[in-house]
Parts: sequence; structure tokens; C-alpha cells
Amino acid sequence: MTTAVAWRHRHLLDVDVLGRDDLDLVMRTADEMAEVVAGRAAPDQALRNVGVTILFYEASTRTRVSFEVAAKHLGASVVNVSAAGSSVTKGESLLDTMRTLEAGGARILVIRHASSGAPYLLAEHFGGSVINGGDGWHAHPTQALLDLYTIRAHLPGGSLEGRKVAIVGDVLHSRVARSNLWTLTAAGADVWIAGPATLLRGLAAWGRAGVGGTRPFRVTTDVEAAVRDAAVVMTLRIQKERMAGGLLPSLREYAATYGITRERLALAAPDALVMHPGPMNEGIEIAPDVANGPQSVITEQVANGVPVRMAILKLLWGAR
Amino acid sequence: MTTAVAWRHRHLLDVDVLGRDDLDLVMRTADEMAEVVAGRAAPDQALRNVGVTILFYEASTRTRVSFEVAAKHLGASVVNVSAAGSSVTKGESLLDTMRTLEAGGARILVIRHASSGAPYLLAEHFGGSVINGGDGWHAHPTQALLDLYTIRAHLPGGSLEGRKVAIVGDVLHSRVARSNLWTLTAAGADVWIAGPATLLRGLAAWGRAGVGGTRPFRVTTDVEAAVRDAAVVMTLRIQKERMAGGLLPSLREYAATYGITRERLALAAPDALVMHPGPMNEGIEIAPDVANGPQSVITEQVANGVPVRMAILKLLWGAR
Amino acid sequence: MTTAVAWRHRHLLDVDVLGRDDLDLVMRTADEMAEVVAGRAAPDQALRNVGVTILFYEASTRTRVSFEVAAKHLGASVVNVSAAGSSVTKGESLLDTMRTLEAGGARILVIRHASSGAPYLLAEHFGGSVINGGDGWHAHPTQALLDLYTIRAHLPGGSLEGRKVAIVGDVLHSRVARSNLWTLTAAGADVWIAGPATLLRGLAAWGRAGVGGTRPFRVTTDVEAAVRDAAVVMTLRIQKERMAGGLLPSLREYAATYGITRERLALAAPDALVMHPGPMNEGIEIAPDVANGPQSVITEQVANGVPVRMAILKLLWGAR
Repeated sequence: MTTAVAWRHRHLLDVDVLGRDDLDLVMRTADEMAEVVAGRAAPDQALRNVGVTILFYEASTRTRVSFEVAAKHLGASVVNVSAAGSSVTKGESLLDTMRTLEAGGARILVIRHASSGAPYLLAEHFGGSVINGGDGWHAHPTQALLDLYTIRAHLPGGSLEGRKVAIVGDVLHSRVARSNLWTLTAAGADVWIAGPATLLRGLAAWGRAGVGGTRPFRVTTDVEAAVRDAAVVMTLRIQKERMAGGLLPSLREYAATYGITRERLALAAPDALVMHPGPMNEGIEIAPDVANGPQSVITEQVANGVPVRMAILKLLWGAR
Repeated sequence: MTTAVAWRHRHLLDVDVLGRDDLDLVMRTADEMAEVVAGRAAPDQALRNVGVTILFYEASTRTRVSFEVAAKHLGASVVNVSAAGSSVTKGESLLDTMRTLEAGGARILVIRHASSGAPYLLAEHFGGSVINGGDGWHAHPTQALLDLYTIRAHLPGGSLEGRKVAIVGDVLHSRVARSNLWTLTAAGADVWIAGPATLLRGLAAWGRAGVGGTRPFRVTTDVEAAVRDAAVVMTLRIQKERMAGGLLPSLREYAATYGITRERLALAAPDALVMHPGPMNEGIEIAPDVANGPQSVITEQVANGVPVRMAILKLLWGAR
Repeated sequence: MTTAVAWRHRHLLDVDVLGRDDLDLVMRTADEMAEVVAGRAAPDQALRNVGVTILFYEASTRTRVSFEVAAKHLGASVVNVSAAGSSVTKGESLLDTMRTLEAGGARILVIRHASSGAPYLLAEHFGGSVINGGDGWHAHPTQALLDLYTIRAHLPGGSLEGRKVAIVGDVLHSRVARSNLWTLTAAGADVWIAGPATLLRGLAAWGRAGVGGTRPFRVTTDVEAAVRDAAVVMTLRIQKERMAGGLLPSLREYAATYGITRERLALAAPDALVMHPGPMNEGIEIAPDVANGPQSVITEQVANGVPVRMAILKLLWGAR
């Protein structure tokens, strides 16, 4: 019962505006792009000579490169602007930089910024399309889409409807988790989040109210309750600065209490997928034998970044 | 009475060698390039496959990107070398790097360096053309040219002859101001510079002798005298390190005494242009309502960087 | 008596596997590439649209740019990943990054990494070709090849057979010297290394056993014995951190005892070549008048980086 839908979004600022039809369209387009990348379908020059600028105000290798190769695959003319350590640190300059890029022919702007909402500011002033490549603790839409793409490839019928997904770790400070809450509940999953109470503050109320006011999720400090019978176990990176901030007593205690070990994974469904957005602290939030074990799809997540980002670029450009 | 002149410069190291005919030629060529950028004229592949290397030894986003998009618009093959934090810190290595770039086909080299004169060193040894993208406190020729281009677009008849221009701030440490003194006086403007005495040291003598020994400018600590009836008010960024160096008592005092506020701007001509080379400290050297007000052409300055730099690239390449 | 040999290596991880025929093939191919670079031969698009990614985990300008221009000369599609200061610092992430690049179409990966052996790890998992751009103290194969290329251009008949080569300095911590020991002895040279005993630790045993167990070299603390009658004098950069580590008493003492001065150079053969892999500390390991004197081929070394790296790229790609 697939419905032919057109893409109607000019920007990709968050996944909160994407309905189930939108998500299906991204997934199908990513399937096509994966064929192109693998050389099994003809090259796609949908963005031939289109100016794509990747403006990253935070250090990143994987996401930045993934966008660059995705854009080049589609024939785009790519400019990288890595502003880490540059003189550009204020909102004023963010807009000035955007205007320079636009004056030079940038039509699609991919931005990563430490301030939540920075992509929205750009979208208000930019004549082309803005893609959020991660903003503060707020959102990381393409990561959530590639996670969804990776999960669907493994679940029978590609459906998450009613399947349990556990997200374990520092959800409070995670833009990845926040975006995944939107897409996973939109796809019908039964989402549980688990972690120390200090790293879940305020989330219980949101979970009861529901994502978008209609799609509740479960919040618990009991990791085993979250993992039990889950079809997907997603762990998040623990940042060492959380300890300095008094939110975590020690990494060792975190690993003992919340780390995904073989024993904890055994509580999940037999074929449960293990996921991590990277970069991992092996031995802390995830045991090495789990990270590299047969249930891990972490490498696939990384590889899927390219076709999923190609799909987004192609859909945004087609909708202009 | 426009005279057809040919461009005869192989390098753009400073604006001091540019006469009025040269400036007119840059302005006219930039007009053509602006049509290309806007898509109203056919693409110009004047630098098709020409190797352009952008070698920046200081952090920069706007100028670097502006050169990159300008060069790509003309079909050039662009290599970026951002040497900030690299192992290259000595004069020896600057020449070695240049030789590597030349061996690889670089024909035009854009350099930014903290040492005044570094572009001259390269020009002595490089087989192609060198463009100074800013060297120490010495010169920033393309900024002065885009400032001139921006002003001319707004003045009746495009002429600065006899028009008063006020440059306010830390002129002593500003390569932008130094280059603007050359171009603005060459275009016939009546230039006034104003700021605290500590940041104008030595400039009064130059002002009396005149730029090029023939074109005097006014130096004053009285910002209101400088701004009164001016057709253009250009403010400069105040660097916080000036206070550490004992040259400024406090930013707050600077803002009160020299900041361009609505009240001070009211002293200028009714339609006076407000300019700033960026990045701005809003609330210090310029009030936010002035920076974003109807007389501000700051955004235009940024956007004009691309066609003006295209013009320079095209003229230098044509003169080889 | 040149024998037509085919290149049979998929990766360039070290020079230890290159026999004399391999070296001859690289040299001949580099000769052809030099003609292309100089515009005396038709452009070579052997890597047209092939994805070449340059993944550098250490600061570098010259080597990085040299690879970039080499790849672009052959028509490749180049992506730069400069991981210095990024969030990527662990082995786990190195493989993830590689997988992202591979998923995006990277076919040739050039890696520089502070950990010896990192390129081997990548080669085990990467589907394309890996080029070692320098790994820890272990190897820097393309530098050794361009050094060999530079020497052969100057020696009568292009042969190193029986010619004395002196390598002076911190051989212990030098990947350049280690790779040169392999190529120079393979080419038949009589190699002497000289330096303070603390910077030669363990090398005497290797010298007696011989490179590859069959090609001995000489180790001495007597720089004059090493330089006497040498056809080539190669000096190495002294790192200041060696003094902090207690391996060197002072730079001044080092300069006095081991620096290559005009006096010491006079002991070598009359037309001896002076070489340095850069960047130089002029006045420490090499006197300025020697570095810039008539026997110096240091600038040629830099320029030869491009055709030699083109040759490697072309040979690896042809052997896939």
C-alpha cells in the first residue's frame, strides 16, 4: 500500500516534520542511491554543478566526509568550510559567512553548529536549502534517518511497527537520541530509553506526553527492563565531561551499571541489532565483543550514511 | 572619458600601484562578473583548469571561501592549503611549499600570512601570479577593492571625487584601513581617520605628507569631527588584545567614545553609507541598530567579495 | 638491460617489498609523469574520476598537497580528511572512517598516522589500495622514492651502485631514514649513518645483519668518517623534543658536532649532493650556506614529489 508522495520540504532542519510517507520516500530513494554507489545502477547526476557547501563549526570527520562524498556522487560542486578555530564564532558572522557562500553560488548548505537552532537561523535568510548536520543537543536528522534505514534493512518486512527499541545512555545531551525518538516513534516502534537519572532529567514528562503529543515512550533507570526482548539495542557515547559536571560518578561505575555487555544483550530478542552512532568508547558504554560481535550493525550504520545523505540531497534539490 | 586600458600587473600585492585607470578596470570587470554570478550573463570559463592555490597561514573563513568560490566560478582547479597549526612556520618552508605547489601546476597563488611582506617574498620566486589575501598589518588589497566597489554602487554617478569618507577605529593595526587609504584617495575621496591617539600613532605625519606623497588625509581623535557630513562611515574591528597591550583602557570606554551609534551617525550626510570589514563586535565599535539599519551596506560588502575577486583573477590571468 | 616488468603491488605500505625492478619501474614512470607535469607530454587521465582520499592524522602541508596535486593531475576526484584535532583518535574510528570513505567511492586511500603500522591495519580491511604517507617512526615510502629519483637524476648513468651515501642525524626516530635504508641499499649504495650514540640505538646490530638480512650498512658516531668521499650527504631534522627526553644535551652542541657545514661538506666528493627531507632547522643540522649552496638539491626533492607520487598512484591503480 505504498502511496506515491512528493517531497515538499525545502530544508531538513529536524525530523519532527517528517511523516511516515516522508520517511518511506527517503528510505526508497536511499535504496536507489545505494544501487548507484555500488555501481549496480547508472550514475545519477541530479545535482550536476550545483553548489553544495559544508559548513562545520564543530570537529567532525565521518559526518563531514559522508556529506562530501554523497554530494560529489551526485555531481555537485562541493566547498568545505571548517570553521573550528576560525575567527567566526558569533551569530553575526554566521550570517555573513552564509551570505558569502550564497553570493558564490551555494544552493545547498549543510551546517553543523554547537548552538541548537543555528540551522533555523540560516534557513530564515538563505535562498537555497539548509541541511542540519547536527546542532547542539537538539537534532541530527540524517543520523536518525540512516539509523532507521539500517534497522529496516534487517527487520522482517522492513517494519518497526510494535517492535521494541532500547536507547541506552546519556539521552539528555544526545541530539542523535532526540532525533531518533521522532523517527522511531513515527515508524511505530515501542521506544524505551534507559540511563542514570541525572542523564534522563525532564525526559519522563516528555515520554508520558508523547513525541508530537501523541507517541509516548518509556523512560527508566533500569537498563535490563529496557533491553529485555528488544529488537534493537542502541547505545550512546558517554562524554567524559559529564563526570566533571557531577552527572556521573565514574566511567567504571557507568560501565558496570549501564554498559551493554554480552550478558545484558542476552536479555534482548535473540536476533536483536546492536547499534551505536560512534565514536565508541569500547569497554565503557559497549563491550568490545558486543561492538564487534555478530549482532552489531555499527559498520553498516557508517556505510549507510552515504546513500541516505544522497537521498536527502536529491529530494531537497528536486523540491526547490 | 573612459580610456580603454590594458591590465599590466602580474601580481596583486598591494593597491599602491593601482592608478585610477586600473581601479576603473577592476570595477568594470567586477560588474561583468556580478552578471555572471547572478546568471544574467553566460558563464565565464576564463580560468578553465588553471591551478589556483589558496594558501592561508591565518584562520579565515570569509576571505578564503570568497576566493574559492570566485576561482571555481571561472572554472579553475582549486587547492586549499590551510597552514594554521601545520608544521610550516618558517620562511624556509613557505618557499618550499610554494615550490611544491608550483611543481604541481599552481599558476595563481592566493596567500594570507601574519608577516607583512610575505606575498612579496613569494612573488620573487613564483613563476605565476601572487595575490595578497592579507599580510600582517600591511595590506588587504581585495578588501579595499570590494569596499570601493560597494561605495561606487551607491554614490551618484559612481564617483567619490571630493566626497568625505570617515574611517573610525584601530587604524594603526588595520591592513584593511591601510589599503583603503590608497584606493579611496586615488578615487579622489576626502578621507578622515579617527580613533584613540594610541591607535593612530605615526599616522598624522603620513596624513600630512599624503598617500603616495601627494594625497593627504586627515587624522583626528575627535570622532564627531570625522563623521560630520561624511558620505561614508567605515568602522573597524577592535581586537581585545589591544587592551592587554595597554593601548585601550576598556572596551566599554571605547564604545562610549568611538562607537558608531545612531546619534553619531546622525551627524553624517543623510544618506551616508555604514561599512564594516567584519567580523563585527556589535555593541563595541558599532551599535546593533546601526549595523543592521537601513544605511548599512555591510552585507553587500560580503557579497561583493566574489565578483571583485573574480575580476582580479581574470585580469591577472589575462595579463600573464 | 632493462627488463619489462609489471607492477604487482596493490598497496604501498613500505619500500621493503620493492625489488630493483620495481624501483626502476617507479623511476621510469616518474620520468613520464614529469613530462606530463611540465606540459611536454599529453595529459594523463589514468585516474579519471577515481576516488582518492587523503587521510592525514598528523599536521602536514607539503606531503598532503603533493599527493593532492598528483592525484588531480591524473584526473582523480580528491577528498581531503584532515583529522588533526577532530574527534577521531582511536583505532576503532580509523576503521569506521575508512568504511565511510569506501562506502562513498574511495578507491585509493593515502594515510598519514602517528602510529606505526596504521596503514597495514587499513590495508587489511580496505577494498582498494592504501598508500602510506608516513606512519610513526616506521616508514615514509614516497619520500624515499622521491629521494632516490632525485639522486639518480644527478649521478652519472643514474646508478647508485657502489656509491657512498651518508645519512646524518636522528636516524632512530626517522621514518624517512628507515625507508631510505631500504631503497638506497636495494639500489646498491654503500650507506653510512652517523649521529650521537643516543640517536642510533639498536641500529648497529641491524647494520651488521644487513637490510633484509643481506645488505649491510655502516653505523658510526664519527660524522666525518661518514661524510668522507660520499656522493650524497643527507641530513635529518632534529626535533627539539629529543632534548627534553634527555637524548641530546643541546641544539648548539649538536650543531657543532653533527651539523653539516661547508667545512664538513668539503670532506665529501667534490660534486656531492646535499639533501634534506624538510622542514629544515637551518643553523642546526645544516648550515644556511650549505642548504642554499650550489650542491643542494633540496628544492628539487620538493618538486619531484609530484611526479613520483603520480607514478605510484598510476602503478597502483593499473595493478588493481
